[in-house]
Amino acid sequence: MHLRETPVQPVRPADHSDQPSAFCPRFQYAIELIGRRWVGAVLRVLVAGPARFNELLAAVPNLSDRLLTERLRELEREGLVTRTVSPDRPIRVTYELTDCGRSLSEIICTIGTWSERWVDVKT
Amino acid sequence: MHLRETPVQPVRPADHSDQPSAFCPRFQYAIELIGRRWVGAVLRVLVAGPARFNELLAAVPNLSDRLLTERLRELEREGLVTRTVSPDRPIRVTYELTDCGRSLSEIICTIGTWSERWVDVKT
Repeated sequence: MHLRETPVQPVRPADHSDQPSAFCPRFQYAIELIGRRWVGAVLRVLVAGPARFNELLAAVPNLSDRLLTERLRELEREGLVTRTVSPDRPIRVTYELTDCGRSLSEIICTIGTWSERWVDVKT
Repeated sequence: MHLRETPVQPVRPADHSDQPSAFCPRFQYAIELIGRRWVGAVLRVLVAGPARFNELLAAVPNLSDRLLTERLRELEREGLVTRTVSPDRPIRVTYELTDCGRSLSEIICTIGTWSERWVDVKT
């Protein structure tokens, strides 16, 4: 299973009420993709705009250099992120969401709103 | 970090555009909670209504008895699911979303719509 480069245009308004409980491999792929460790946090930074490696590293506390590299490679392979290397010196590597990645912004916003209401930071 | 029993009422319209890239532990907790292996699929079944253990098992292909038990216990501990044992014979164990769990339906619907557009099932 993989992400498309261009979206399928819906032929009808989005509505899952006809068969909300039927298993959907597309849904499961999507929710487990965005829910992978650190992926949500990285996507949330990139939704705000392109960022360099060190900016991403600084934006996400406790995320190691190695894990960020690994997650970014996964996101590139999935087609959610593009990596651009500038020809200038010093070399700058910038990460940016693809159209597919940017289209996650509504999901990210909805999860953000839900978490503000329901997640308590007290342990 | 844990989920609340009752939601915080937002004091302003939900809007993350003021600081979309700031790291938010609440957001990260929420996205990694719903993205855990099999959790999305189980929640999607329960959004449609209460279900018994065997109904959940039948609704999610490739999910083992042991893993479903484990995931349901986690969801109970998190406060997303309640487990009810009927007093009749044979004993019936039913799982149902709490208010907090039901409030995930918008997220689940948004991810479903996104996945229909962007996830290709061809390998």
